[in-house]
Amino acid sequence: MALSFDSNASPALHTDLYQLTMLQAYQRENMDATAVFSLFVRRLKQRNYLLACGLDTVLSYLEGLRFTASDRDYLRSLDDFDDDFVDGLADFRFTGDVYAVPEGTPVFANEPLLEVVAPIGEAQLVETFLLNQITYQTGYASKAARVKQAATIDGTDRTVADFGMRRMHGADATLKAARAGYIAGIDATSNVAAGQTYGLPVTGTMAHSYIEAHEHEQEAFDAFADLYPRTVLLVDTYDTLDGVRRVVKMAKARGDDFQVRGIRLDSGDLGELARKSRAILDEAGLEDVNILASGGLDEHRIAELVQSGAPIDGFGVGTKLGTMEDQPYLDSAYKLAGYDGTPRMKLAPNKKNLPGRKQVYRSFDDNGTATGDVITTADASHGGEPLLQCVMRNGERTEAAPSLAQSRTYAHDALAALPEALHALEKADTYPVDVSQALKDRASETEAALKAAHDLP
Amino acid sequence: MALSFDSNASPALHTDLYQLTMLQAYQRENMDATAVFSLFVRRLKQRNYLLACGLDTVLSYLEGLRFTASDRDYLRSLDDFDDDFVDGLADFRFTGDVYAVPEGTPVFANEPLLEVVAPIGEAQLVETFLLNQITYQTGYASKAARVKQAATIDGTDRTVADFGMRRMHGADATLKAARAGYIAGIDATSNVAAGQTYGLPVTGTMAHSYIEAHEHEQEAFDAFADLYPRTVLLVDTYDTLDGVRRVVKMAKARGDDFQVRGIRLDSGDLGELARKSRAILDEAGLEDVNILASGGLDEHRIAELVQSGAPIDGFGVGTKLGTMEDQPYLDSAYKLAGYDGTPRMKLAPNKKNLPGRKQVYRSFDDNGTATGDVITTADASHGGEPLLQCVMRNGERTEAAPSLAQSRTYAHDALAALPEALHALEKADTYPVDVSQALKDRASETEAALKAAHDLP
Repeated sequence: MALSFDSNASPALHTDLYQLTMLQAYQRENMDATAVFSLFVRRLKQRNYLLACGLDTVLSYLEGLRFTASDRDYLRSLDDFDDDFVDGLADFRFTGDVYAVPEGTPVFANEPLLEVVAPIGEAQLVETFLLNQITYQTGYASKAARVKQAATIDGTDRTVADFGMRRMHGADATLKAARAGYIAGIDATSNVAAGQTYGLPVTGTMAHSYIEAHEHEQEAFDAFADLYPRTVLLVDTYDTLDGVRRVVKMAKARGDDFQVRGIRLDSGDLGELARKSRAILDEAGLEDVNILASGGLDEHRIAELVQSGAPIDGFGVGTKLGTMEDQPYLDSAYKLAGYDGTPRMKLAPNKKNLPGRKQVYRSFDDNGTATGDVITTADASHGGEPLLQCVMRNGERTEAAPSLAQSRTYAHDALAALPEALHALEKADTYPVDVSQALKDRASETEAALKAAHDLP
Repeated sequence: MALSFDSNASPALHTDLYQLTMLQAYQRENMDATAVFSLFVRRLKQRNYLLACGLDTVLSYLEGLRFTASDRDYLRSLDDFDDDFVDGLADFRFTGDVYAVPEGTPVFANEPLLEVVAPIGEAQLVETFLLNQITYQTGYASKAARVKQAATIDGTDRTVADFGMRRMHGADATLKAARAGYIAGIDATSNVAAGQTYGLPVTGTMAHSYIEAHEHEQEAFDAFADLYPRTVLLVDTYDTLDGVRRVVKMAKARGDDFQVRGIRLDSGDLGELARKSRAILDEAGLEDVNILASGGLDEHRIAELVQSGAPIDGFGVGTKLGTMEDQPYLDSAYKLAGYDGTPRMKLAPNKKNLPGRKQVYRSFDDNGTATGDVITTADASHGGEPLLQCVMRNGERTEAAPSLAQSRTYAHDALAALPEALHALEKADTYPVDVSQALKDRASETEAALKAAHDLP
């Protein structure tokens, strides 16, 4: 499958050049021992938790990773590669193991979302793709969970729809956002391709241009409702409350045939307009007509509207979620943690990583609320629930992927089990994440050995 | 061509659901007259100019826009569409005209980057794809131009490489960023797929993990330089200046065979480490070994380093450029400006648009420096250089796309023609953009007619 609609490169070329030059070097040096790489996020910044996402995408990539003839032709055209190396890529397969937390698991700083255990060249090559997909999907899911939380902050389950594709970063982002958002609790997407690809619920209303193309707003409303009786009418093209009154007029004219499901407000003071619109609708006996709001929304604005009691039944959320406006990336890293049976780490300032294979145990109190995590060596036995599972062995999945609906339910329950304070939109006290003594000892020993080898103080 | 590596949806489904429900409505209402849509950006926010980018991508999309059998099967599965409508999509083609500024043109708030003139259903359907690609590519190019500007702020042409793919938003973004960045003046990319797709120069060095996989840093340096004599060695894995001294040791051991091109600093105080590294290298007679810097860079940090006199020859720029961290989206819009020969506009607060087809004229002084723009009606004759050109007629390009190298040169010259103040990284005084009296009159008349029709004050 090609990487993008205007590229015939395969996903194998979705990598930084140095991954391939290092792969060639490892082959030349006969370095084919097993490496361990850990993928984690260094800091949460504005977030109280992250919602791990993107695993199924990367497992599909790892299973299908092949260099096509066209990929190899391109690599031959560069100065960096010998023909023997490029010819050998025809047989390249990912043959390693992957341990990972399920999609929809809340995770915290320095906890591995996934570990790859594979011959070093293979484990290195896949870094770029894994980081690209998991960083974005996890970053998006983490913000989407906040948006859904804000929409339900008073206990009422208001719908949230993803309307953000037009300003997301390219085509693939729109698909992955719809997927990650659904796992995080977003109810539907306007993205038709995402509906086709992932079987997600798709939704939409009408655009201002449709209203404007007609001579009069009323004419547009009538024509659209004739074709889509249960539609949502956009009322703010000219004057919002006049628009609402036109909906009332339609209802009176159509009587029992009136089935319009809602109105959408997309500009102005949404709280105030929602209140006035509700009053107009209710006075006409249209209590069943919902009010949807959109336009520049994020979790903070939604929480304000809900907390002010604005009678809004659902939100269409676009750009600020779609581009993760307040935190457009995570400080993700994919670091060598072991090679050929020996733990490895980096000593650069503020960039040390935890060496060796690891596990994360999450503890819960009697009410099922998470009380804290411990990052341990992989072989430690420890109380609590181990989060990392073996999801791929020798390049093959250990089991079929859960459905997105299953991941969504899993995420919902896992989020509900977090301490209440973490669901605040403002930065909460840090959730306790400890590092086990055995892992601390391993880190100290590894650092000491590296310093000794390099004559460092 | 499929939209993404894990979707068999075609680019035709890369759209919001409402574009398709509106298309069906227009067909039912026999509304097939010609519409004009304008794509523009409402506000520049932190930018002093935008660099228009993404046109070639959207022209390719418009030329190739087809609903495949699989796309149609999916649409049939939804409740919204009649079989007749879906069957008819088999013959859907974009048959309209497109007027646009060339890629690499600096543009300002409210100036059309592009206008689509087509039967209204067609012009509406393509909104989502056009906004998605042009918003991202233009946003990225606009920031990339600042980064390159910062790297050359003292008149020395330091190289800038795009290292950002791992934290960009999905796979398509990485390709479009490499493309847009190259037009904006970025010299090379680490993205192999972008090299293959667009013929861009690809570059890379080595990762910390490669160093760490070896027992000793020296061993790693030697092995990599044996295979790639003209490589760049990453020196900060354990202790940066020790790393530099190891490069000196290599040079002494290898004598005339030493061809290492540079070192890379990726952590710590880059300015200070560059100065100390330069001193160590120079003292060993290694004046030709370049110093490259990377790690959390953006235009502000690069300008600081250059202005402090840090002896850095090139920059690898990643996440902050790749995600446009300070401004991850543009306030782009695609608005109906006319239908069936009549100008149209929206009256919602702060969302009015300029009605009808338009042109932008740029004036220059005797030195070739731009002095200001005027947005006019399309048919106005006016002094200065018209920016919008007819690039597609009846669904076919009017001429072959320029090469990326041509667009890069064009952008370079167009940027050089902007007033010097706009190249500051801080917000400069606004560049003058006027609206012609005829266009103002058209807007007033359109607004008055709409208000009269809707009984608005």
